This record gives sequence, structure tokens and C-alpha cells, in this order.
Amino acid sequence: MSTIRVRCLLQQCTKATLRLQDDSVVTINRGMVAFVAFIKDAQLDDVDKLAKEIATVKLCESENGGLKTIVDLPGDLLIIPQATLGGRLNSHRFQYHHNINKDTGQEFYDRFVSNMRDLCSQNTNNVVHAGSYGIRQIYSSETNGPAMHIIEF
Amino acid sequence: MSTIRVRCLLQQCTKATLRLQDDSVVTINRGMVAFVAFIKDAQLDDVDKLAKEIATVKLCESENGGLKTIVDLPGDLLIIPQATLGGRLNSHRFQYHHNINKDTGQEFYDRFVSNMRDLCSQNTNNVVHAGSYGIRQIYSSETNGPAMHIIEF
Repeated sequence: MSTIRVRCLLQQCTKATLRLQDDSVVTINRGMVAFVAFIKDAQLDDVDKLAKEIATVKLCESENGGLKTIVDLPGDLLIIPQATLGGRLNSHRFQYHHNINKDTGQEFYDRFVSNMRDLCSQNTNNVVHAGSYGIRQIYSSETNGPAMHIIEF
Repeated sequence: MSTIRVRCLLQQCTKATLRLQDDSVVTINRGMVAFVAFIKDAQLDDVDKLAKEIATVKLCESENGGLKTIVDLPGDLLIIPQATLGGRLNSHRFQYHHNINKDTGQEFYDRFVSNMRDLCSQNTNNVVHAGSYGIRQIYSSETNGPAMHIIEF
């Protein structure tokens, strides 16, 4: 993990719910949840690359069992900032020294969400929701097999 | 990721539910979910090391806000085999060539679950449940902040 700049956990879901900063709650149905962390040396290019990889990865089970992209399925997408994914275990505690600073993290997160909305808008049946940056993510999910995958680079 | 032998995703939860091979369903309350994948070169020592790290990592929020281990909290633990965490992205698809073979994976998983039960039994208030190896994990969870962390080595 020493050299990665971006880490994203993808989880397939049948339903997922997240509370936002204004205490409203957003819900997606069948689709994918993307938990995202940017590490210290992340660049704007990395943000764009991650969005493209998520939009084009074939991970979503279609009716006939084959795997499709979230855009082609079409499926819903819930994006959740998750800085803890950048933590490193040291003496029984996780440390976050290597995470990106908050302002840049917010800027990158906003750009990432905007990119994902653009990419998913190719299919008007895609619902995209995104969590509020910098708050505790109150979250619940139901899966038919979470099928967790990690994209990092 | 090229050199890792073990990858584990830890998620804090207030409730989590998993279906087992016999179609029964297990539920844990406040505690932690551990999704585990063993990669090709994993050794028995790695299994034992991972169990110790999970039992001793201070990730669980106590009443006063401080962080405790799952054993000290005491909190429940749900262990879920999750081979997909060992997948590698290649040309828009995840490949699993680097995962451990099924028989060794089952052996390591059983040992890991046994280790975790032993370590958690220090506190009789800990509930430990474990998913069935090799089946699709039908799973749901509620969190007060999933606080996802990765242990890998």
C-alpha cells in the first residue's frame, strides 16, 4: 500500500441507504456502492482515471448471469467518501498520516462525483447518489452477495 | 497488491445478517464484520497473524468515544469469506488467478475462524458467527459509520 494514491472498495447491492449532512437519507436499489479514499500523492488525473475504471468495469450481474458495467446494466450507484480506507495499521491502531488533506480531498471527491454523474448519465435509468464529505457515514445495505472488489493504484 | 498474501476488510456495524449454507441466517449486533481473502502465497502463519491483528486492533468505539478492541468492548464479530477481495482489475474485468486454491482456502478459513473464536472467547459476552466457505454471501448490514479499514500483508 506504500505507493498507492487512490483506493476504492466496490460493493454490489440490492439496496443501500445513506444519511447526508442535512439529515436527509438517500436510497439506491440494485447496483453498486463505491467507497472512496484519496491518499497523499493523488493527482487530478487519478480522480478521472478512477471514475472511468468504475464506469467501465464489468461487475454487475445481468438477468442472464453475465457481467455488465453499471452504466450498461443499468444500475444505481451510491458514492461514499471513506477516508478510513487509507488508514495503516501500526501498533494495534490505524493511522491516517498518509491520507490527503481535507481541502484537496473535498475538491477531488467533488470532481469524482461529478465525473461519475457524467459517465452514468449516458443511461438515463441510472440513479447516482453521493455521500457528504467529511461527516460520519450512517449507512445500511442489503446484498445478494456483496462481491467486494478493490480498485487501487 | 502484487506481493500480498492476505487481505481483510473490517467494517464496524450496529447489526449484520448473513445467510449460511443450510439457509439458516445468523445475526450479530454492535461489533465488527471481517471480510477475508487469502491469496496464492498465504501460509498458515499468515492466518494466525491475521487473527491476532484483528483481535488486538483498537477500532471499536466505546461508550466514552475511545477505541477498544472487539474483545475488550465486548462486541460481536461476523466473519465472511470474500475471495473477490483478491481480484485484480485487468481490461475492465476482475481476474482471480492469484487467489489461493479452494481446498487450501477452506483449510485456512476454518483455521482462521477457529482462531478468532478462541481469541474472542476471552470475553464470554462476545458473539462470533462465521459464513460458509465457497457459497454466495447473502448479507445485509446497518452501521453508525462503517469505518472501513483494510489489513493486508
